[in-house]
Amino acid sequence: MEYLDVTYHIDGPAGEAQGRAESVLLEQTVETPRAVAERYAFVRDNMMGRLLALDPDPEGGFRARMALPLVTASVDPAQFVNVLFGNASLHPFVSLDDFDVPASMGDAMGGAMGGLFRGPRFGLSGLRARLGVYGRPLTCSAVKPVGLGLAELAGLARTFALGGIDLVKDDHYLADHPFSGFAERVRACQAAVAEASAQTGRRTLYVPSLSGTPEAVRRQADLAQEAGVEAVMAAPMLLGLPLFYELTHQRLDVPVLAHPSFGGAGRIRPETLFGKLFRLFGADAVIFASYGGRFAYPPAVCRRLADALRRPWHAFEPAFPVPAGGMQVERTAELVAFYGVDTVLLIGGSLLEAGDALLDRTRAFTESVRASV
Amino acid sequence: MEYLDVTYHIDGPAGEAQGRAESVLLEQTVETPRAVAERYAFVRDNMMGRLLALDPDPEGGFRARMALPLVTASVDPAQFVNVLFGNASLHPFVSLDDFDVPASMGDAMGGAMGGLFRGPRFGLSGLRARLGVYGRPLTCSAVKPVGLGLAELAGLARTFALGGIDLVKDDHYLADHPFSGFAERVRACQAAVAEASAQTGRRTLYVPSLSGTPEAVRRQADLAQEAGVEAVMAAPMLLGLPLFYELTHQRLDVPVLAHPSFGGAGRIRPETLFGKLFRLFGADAVIFASYGGRFAYPPAVCRRLADALRRPWHAFEPAFPVPAGGMQVERTAELVAFYGVDTVLLIGGSLLEAGDALLDRTRAFTESVRASV
Repeated sequence: MEYLDVTYHIDGPAGEAQGRAESVLLEQTVETPRAVAERYAFVRDNMMGRLLALDPDPEGGFRARMALPLVTASVDPAQFVNVLFGNASLHPFVSLDDFDVPASMGDAMGGAMGGLFRGPRFGLSGLRARLGVYGRPLTCSAVKPVGLGLAELAGLARTFALGGIDLVKDDHYLADHPFSGFAERVRACQAAVAEASAQTGRRTLYVPSLSGTPEAVRRQADLAQEAGVEAVMAAPMLLGLPLFYELTHQRLDVPVLAHPSFGGAGRIRPETLFGKLFRLFGADAVIFASYGGRFAYPPAVCRRLADALRRPWHAFEPAFPVPAGGMQVERTAELVAFYGVDTVLLIGGSLLEAGDALLDRTRAFTESVRASV
Repeated sequence: MEYLDVTYHIDGPAGEAQGRAESVLLEQTVETPRAVAERYAFVRDNMMGRLLALDPDPEGGFRARMALPLVTASVDPAQFVNVLFGNASLHPFVSLDDFDVPASMGDAMGGAMGGLFRGPRFGLSGLRARLGVYGRPLTCSAVKPVGLGLAELAGLARTFALGGIDLVKDDHYLADHPFSGFAERVRACQAAVAEASAQTGRRTLYVPSLSGTPEAVRRQADLAQEAGVEAVMAAPMLLGLPLFYELTHQRLDVPVLAHPSFGGAGRIRPETLFGKLFRLFGADAVIFASYGGRFAYPPAVCRRLADALRRPWHAFEPAFPVPAGGMQVERTAELVAFYGVDTVLLIGGSLLEAGDALLDRTRAFTESVRASV
């Protein structure tokens, strides 16, 4: 069997490190109590993962190194991130320190990941080859600010190219705005850079920024490539890693410059991310880690999060809060009292622990909900 | 003009709050020095945003409320998040507290956002109507753990439905695995739940989890809907908000349950997120916030990040580090000494400040790079 090798940083007192590490291991593999998972031979033998080491971190806290089964993670790029740091990202005491994939992934399209990842297609050497520049750093600048018209943007691109810049990129705030639409901008800047390059005899690449839904980004990528563009920029955390993967692995024939925008987005208040942003984007019901479970949002945060999903907000439909993350059947009355009637109560492990008595326990749960109001 | 109303939490001493708030305002609007932006009338009048209030937060730090121009943000869902918390997410002293959109967005498809967002399509009332359940919370459970075969998953789904659960969802670790492929799983669980519903006379919805690239997720969504599924689950932060938006606004005819996975992902070490995950996903060059600029990664983090992009790692191509975020032309020699030759030096504002002398300043930059090695 092959494994992902993942190291998490775990905060907290020494006495809790082992327990926390084990809870993260379960969270990132079977997400059920250990007893439930070990009931099934295939799960026990193939899905459980192992804690390889738990050592004090010289900078404080602990480093927990784990082997997570590759077979779970290697199906698609979203699932890979899910196994790497999906639910664990919600624990305030955990951060992702480091990871590695098995050496067999090095067999680019034929390794144990089923050819999931191939990394950069051009990388250092491919970009240098495109530019014909060796032995010195490359230079890059940006046409900006957003709000400039086509002539101004193209003028800046031309000047940068005349000045010898290697990569002239769009500012990451340039999207498909009415005042500098993507198609027109790409054609104008690409032409300006090509013209300047012809004048100087030195290559400059114009690097437009892709932004939008997957469908829009695909159209922009095609359009840019048809216009002769030889590199593009995209923000993986903004577009989402799966769309970024589709671009790099299945769509683009040119190198990609990654922009860090939204790369620190864990620092959104949970009530704003889950309560407002998810609702705005169209979620009808939003699962979140409730107080009193495996995760640690305090009750006041949960209250605000649930309120944000349901309160009147312009003409947006209210959405269901779905408190979850280790809820117990016995807490039904308390949860209903806290969250109210317009709630979805999500209980998994606490039912599955019943084993052969699952139907009875399920009935007890659903009846307790009916009885709670 | 219309604005996004955004509140950031800003840490730090009182003496720095005003300066930090203003830097965040520039970062989230024109991302150039103020003098550069104000050179252009259209930019000055339409793109600059305003600091509305800066107040001490009773829990510590400050709350900075800003008006950010809607015209910049309202182009597409990725750009919306970009303006809301794109680069600001990279400042360790900033978190996103809250936001609102103009009231006109309430005119669902016809407001000032150009109909960008419509929020939940079904929401509380639509989900209740699908189930015919009123006056009590809904109940939900999950078929899990990952690794179970079709018969076991369908068996769990049937038992939950017989027990009266309203929503039987996939565990979020169930992807398109060989041992329980998406298509077969959806058909088996949907049939099991339908059969149980027929038996009890009570509706239960089976809620499969969508995972993968945009193309794969679209196929899964279509397949689920063709199989009669009446709700699906998706993790917006894992799929990326733009793909989630495409699903909810353009693709799905059924309600969506949002899963929080990866929702705290800001707590990935920068060198791991930008240096490894972005490279693994195929970035050929990775922009990051360098030490000594507007952002605050210490030199040691920048060193590790750059090293991670370039060092031998299986058969993956090395990628270019692109230190950025307020680099100055005068620092060329220092930056080359620190990052080495296999680097892209990205300088924007420091060139644009030159105004009419842009070509000269650009030449000075590119010549300083040639001279630095």
